[in-house]
Amino acid sequence: MKSLKVFAPATVANISCGFDVLGCCLNGVGDEMLISLSDTPGVRITKIDGADLPLETDKNVAGVAVVALLKELKDTTTGIEIEIYKKIKAGSGIGSSAASSAGAVWATNELLNNPFTATQLVKFAMEGERLASGNAHADNVAPALLGGFTLVRSYNPLDVLKLNTPEDLYMTIIHPQIEVKTADSRKVVKPNVSLKKAITQWGNLGGFIAGLYTNDYDLLGRSLEDVIIEPMRSILIPKFEEVKTTAIENGALGAGISGSGPSIFALSKGKENANKVAKAIEAIYTTTGIAFDIHVASINANGVTAI
Amino acid sequence: MKSLKVFAPATVANISCGFDVLGCCLNGVGDEMLISLSDTPGVRITKIDGADLPLETDKNVAGVAVVALLKELKDTTTGIEIEIYKKIKAGSGIGSSAASSAGAVWATNELLNNPFTATQLVKFAMEGERLASGNAHADNVAPALLGGFTLVRSYNPLDVLKLNTPEDLYMTIIHPQIEVKTADSRKVVKPNVSLKKAITQWGNLGGFIAGLYTNDYDLLGRSLEDVIIEPMRSILIPKFEEVKTTAIENGALGAGISGSGPSIFALSKGKENANKVAKAIEAIYTTTGIAFDIHVASINANGVTAI
Repeated sequence: MKSLKVFAPATVANISCGFDVLGCCLNGVGDEMLISLSDTPGVRITKIDGADLPLETDKNVAGVAVVALLKELKDTTTGIEIEIYKKIKAGSGIGSSAASSAGAVWATNELLNNPFTATQLVKFAMEGERLASGNAHADNVAPALLGGFTLVRSYNPLDVLKLNTPEDLYMTIIHPQIEVKTADSRKVVKPNVSLKKAITQWGNLGGFIAGLYTNDYDLLGRSLEDVIIEPMRSILIPKFEEVKTTAIENGALGAGISGSGPSIFALSKGKENANKVAKAIEAIYTTTGIAFDIHVASINANGVTAI
Repeated sequence: MKSLKVFAPATVANISCGFDVLGCCLNGVGDEMLISLSDTPGVRITKIDGADLPLETDKNVAGVAVVALLKELKDTTTGIEIEIYKKIKAGSGIGSSAASSAGAVWATNELLNNPFTATQLVKFAMEGERLASGNAHADNVAPALLGGFTLVRSYNPLDVLKLNTPEDLYMTIIHPQIEVKTADSRKVVKPNVSLKKAITQWGNLGGFIAGLYTNDYDLLGRSLEDVIIEPMRSILIPKFEEVKTTAIENGALGAGISGSGPSIFALSKGKENANKVAKAIEAIYTTTGIAFDIHVASINANGVTAI
């Protein structure tokens, strides 16, 4: 039975200034998955390790994503079996569901000799996101599949771009183990914004993207500002302001909410800075009594990879 | 008496997806100005040719911009005399006031042996914009001073960036000679927008900036979409939809409102395309009985220049 083992990376969506459009992919933080061809047609989840997630194909994000892929191919004969070795905690805000969806469709596509490009796979992985959060967003699955920093220019029609990735960028992520469901976190976001704040936001997104292409780390830092979503969502995250301020005081270019939270990211130039930031924000969370994980990760330029 | 003659270029602000933040500078379309040092302290407008504009320094955009520059230098002894040879029509939407403000401060700075960088001059030229429209916007003065495509990442603090400019871009501009005052045109813009539209807009701005850095002309075209301002303002511009559609049908990458209008811009790859677009939209306006100008211009990478 032909099979493929893959690393399905964690991702940081939104990145302060790019709500619903910007994301980046992490090295070293992610799940493992084993995807196998089977003689029995259909998609089955045969094993889930490390998390209490549904084995039913139509209730599992990896399952529905692969079903969407096979449906597009009008393929009714292929059998796919999926084993998931979950390391990213569900509800962490670093793309747990996206990793499973992206890993599954990427591996399936490989096993079928690549009928789709990585960019074309995004829409199938988005079906997993639709199941997970009720919203087929692409800001985690796009970086998980393409690697690096990605932009969802448009959802209708879907237009996803891989942006340039400066070499020396590192993410420090702290995941406070409190439950903030994506669906709940979306509810606190108001449906209207002032044009003035929207202009501030798109000025910053423009600056961030220019910074990615010019390797201008200071500009990246100046652009890491969110005047719309962060003020609403950060109240759900204990010690958010203190973590953010401390990260910047300790050399981070900027910090903000990872995806819909509760994880907080800090972006730094160089691994040394990122480690220093990790130490400083760890000290804050140690005082709270809330369990937490901390990751320091370089930017993953490749996305899902065979291992 | 030491003096400097300059070309003060026209500019296109907003460029569909970058309301209040994006702009670009044009070759061949603009004013001429003669700025001279004088032994008599203070700033004087000594001649205006081609337009009926105030000679009083504090009522003239070039005058107030230079006054702001000298004030920052705490310079009470320098005398500056300004002659303006106006070729850009006021109220055209291609940065008429910005050209005068930018040209005047750029030439004054040269005559004073460059105490400021071009980027630092933006804030003085913005004082001219404040006088012209009641709003010290930078999306025309920044490209007029820096050249190429520019982004106002932030107004507070002011942070203006020069972006990359693909070589083969041309603007076709049609200026219908109807009066749409900047102040009036701002009034039709509603103070709040839906978050959904704001996300669409910043996705497009991100795509446009990525397109500038990767010389991806198709991406630039796909990103030239304005779901917020254009629907409100385009009703003030006769034949807007027909001109836009015709421009795109004739090979333009995209089209939209230049600044606050009434000029309409179309962006094309290559001069031949831009000329073809000019011919096609000229045919539309010829039927209206409305007087109009048409310009075809490459992107001016330098901004204000000595001539």
